[in-house]
Amino acid sequence: MKITPRTLKGFRDFLPKAARKRQYVLETLKRVFESYGFEALETPALEYEDILAGKYGTEGDKLMYRFTDNGDRKVALRYDQTVPLARVIAQYQNDLPIPFKRYQTQNVWRAENTQKGRYREFLQVDADIVGTYSPLSDAEVIAVAVKCLESLGFKNFKILINDRSVFTKLVDDGILKQDEMPKIVRAIDKIKKIGDAGVAAEIVDEGFTKEKATEILTRIKEQEKTDALKDISEYLEALNFDKAFLSYEPALARGLDYYTGLIFEVEIEGYDVGSVAGGGRYDNLIGMFAGRDIPAVGFAFGFDRLLEAMAVLNLFPTNLYTDKVLVAFVNSGLQEKALKIADELRNKKINCEVYPEDVNLEKQLKYADKKQIPFVVIVEENQLFLKNMEKRTQEKLTMEQIIEKLS
Amino acid sequence: MKITPRTLKGFRDFLPKAARKRQYVLETLKRVFESYGFEALETPALEYEDILAGKYGTEGDKLMYRFTDNGDRKVALRYDQTVPLARVIAQYQNDLPIPFKRYQTQNVWRAENTQKGRYREFLQVDADIVGTYSPLSDAEVIAVAVKCLESLGFKNFKILINDRSVFTKLVDDGILKQDEMPKIVRAIDKIKKIGDAGVAAEIVDEGFTKEKATEILTRIKEQEKTDALKDISEYLEALNFDKAFLSYEPALARGLDYYTGLIFEVEIEGYDVGSVAGGGRYDNLIGMFAGRDIPAVGFAFGFDRLLEAMAVLNLFPTNLYTDKVLVAFVNSGLQEKALKIADELRNKKINCEVYPEDVNLEKQLKYADKKQIPFVVIVEENQLFLKNMEKRTQEKLTMEQIIEKLS
Repeated sequence: MKITPRTLKGFRDFLPKAARKRQYVLETLKRVFESYGFEALETPALEYEDILAGKYGTEGDKLMYRFTDNGDRKVALRYDQTVPLARVIAQYQNDLPIPFKRYQTQNVWRAENTQKGRYREFLQVDADIVGTYSPLSDAEVIAVAVKCLESLGFKNFKILINDRSVFTKLVDDGILKQDEMPKIVRAIDKIKKIGDAGVAAEIVDEGFTKEKATEILTRIKEQEKTDALKDISEYLEALNFDKAFLSYEPALARGLDYYTGLIFEVEIEGYDVGSVAGGGRYDNLIGMFAGRDIPAVGFAFGFDRLLEAMAVLNLFPTNLYTDKVLVAFVNSGLQEKALKIADELRNKKINCEVYPEDVNLEKQLKYADKKQIPFVVIVEENQLFLKNMEKRTQEKLTMEQIIEKLS
Repeated sequence: MKITPRTLKGFRDFLPKAARKRQYVLETLKRVFESYGFEALETPALEYEDILAGKYGTEGDKLMYRFTDNGDRKVALRYDQTVPLARVIAQYQNDLPIPFKRYQTQNVWRAENTQKGRYREFLQVDADIVGTYSPLSDAEVIAVAVKCLESLGFKNFKILINDRSVFTKLVDDGILKQDEMPKIVRAIDKIKKIGDAGVAAEIVDEGFTKEKATEILTRIKEQEKTDALKDISEYLEALNFDKAFLSYEPALARGLDYYTGLIFEVEIEGYDVGSVAGGGRYDNLIGMFAGRDIPAVGFAFGFDRLLEAMAVLNLFPTNLYTDKVLVAFVNSGLQEKALKIADELRNKKINCEVYPEDVNLEKQLKYADKKQIPFVVIVEENQLFLKNMEKRTQEKLTMEQIIEKLS
């Protein structure tokens, strides 16, 4: 029986050309995380179901990949990186330095509706600081996000910031009951999509009067910067950041329930699909397995969106190849010489290869083209040529000159 | 209800200290792969079950993680990286350069018996060349394995090589029937563990006479190097490799059924747990989805064993930290100065951090110790000290001197 080669809906292969781009972005982000003292953490793809279940709302429980394993254990595939982080914090309390600054870049799985252009397996890129209420850590998380974007070549972007206490203040002031807040947050979260009137209508739909809806909306939009946000701004200045990219948005809500203080999103000019990163402070979540409150602040990049934004803005370097040179031979007697030249190049840290079969030069050049190898060294009896595959130019050079040109 | 934080048996968290080591080894291997023109490929964690089922024998079908997803599709978790490679080759025939040289470093999942010290989630590191019968590609795969080991600091190791045709020759010569060969391969594969007599007994157990068992064993052990192995050796010389590390082992069998030519294993002196890498030529496997024979040669590292061997032989660099400096302040008024110094260090590509809370120096130093940060810059009113955390020495320096010392 012939089996058709195919992948599951929402799952992707990354062939070398795509994998190179992903690797470039991921390594750039890791480098920035590490420059601020964040360190790598890895957790398993499979967890006991009870570790993950009920942590992501009804939606999450529905979209989670769950099954019973051969040993009759109920297990689930990683759904995000925050709940595993909370588990790690509780499980290794004495081994971890506090504050614990970790980044994590692993795949997660969600049985999303793929018609919305969503994937069922996608990479998450998280950086969090666990164990401190200090506003400096809030500022640092924003600073790291900015450095990441700059390192990838983004120039025009905005960090929209707000403080969730804008919403809790409505409760404190008796405008809302505590349990009404999440609905209001979710309604206001849509303000960019549906506008003030749309949000007001939605609040009314939730059972409030028109007057109440207007009052809530007005109070939120006229809310002044909190002291916490002012502290964070000051620290960002101390961290040497231009505050111009910060934009206070009192109606910024973010969908997730668990934020307790700072919330922020990153918008990129010229890329309108949505924010490429978001985060904030969440002081009541990480302690869920430890049985006590543990403060935390962090953010995540939407990796696929980030890649998309880079493609749209043309930010990928043009020299994004890992394989730099094909050492080609004009007749079979010269293949061995080509091998020795390749070895010499490799010793100079120049990635290269030799076509493994005895084929003519044309076939070797076609291979270099298909593989997007940018240079070909052509080995003739008594001379060497360096061919630039993009410009289609070639010049006769000595080995020393070739090494110099390619280094 | 309090949920106990725990991981599934056979699944592991990698905290920063362990993650750093893994990252160091993985990056070293990738660099070597890329230096020979191998490029990254990524495939999904989940595949349609029919893509994987029946490809790994009864054992594999038993150990595979399989379940039915929310959309009633039968799916399975990645069990190795070779079957997904075969699928990719068939699915993107026209997009891939041939020969296709790819490396793949993803996790696989097998419900192994963990009592044998096996993991249920582990990283596989594969490098393969698909689409050529050329013995140069056999030699290159061995060369890459050797370069990887050397790059990691291994000095005394052996590449045991053999040719599977040693076994097929028994069939050609009428000593064995074709369908008896796999049993014989599996018996001979145990020769190191159970010795000649043990293997002979096992062959007898399989229904052969004592005389036949002796004949098979003698013929195999006295088999001379095949022409294919001689070709490979010659190419290795052309690739500038010292042949001294090659050891011809006519009784080397390797467990897997699918090899058709060269087979090899890497043994490391001073690490007796088993081979850290193995591979060979398999010309009938990759074409399974394409409906025709597609030749291939490759190898894989046992990543966990490789790490274990490095630990045993003390090969991890001592400076394997990503976080190099804590910039500490002696009073709260100096935290901002510390932040500016950290920024300056970061601009010189020196990874560093500042403790986010206003705490005393002692607490900051404890944090550095726990996190294994090797250096602390102590910021006083009018002077700076650089403290070496391992040697417990410190000296008064200028900023320029500090940058020079840390660069």
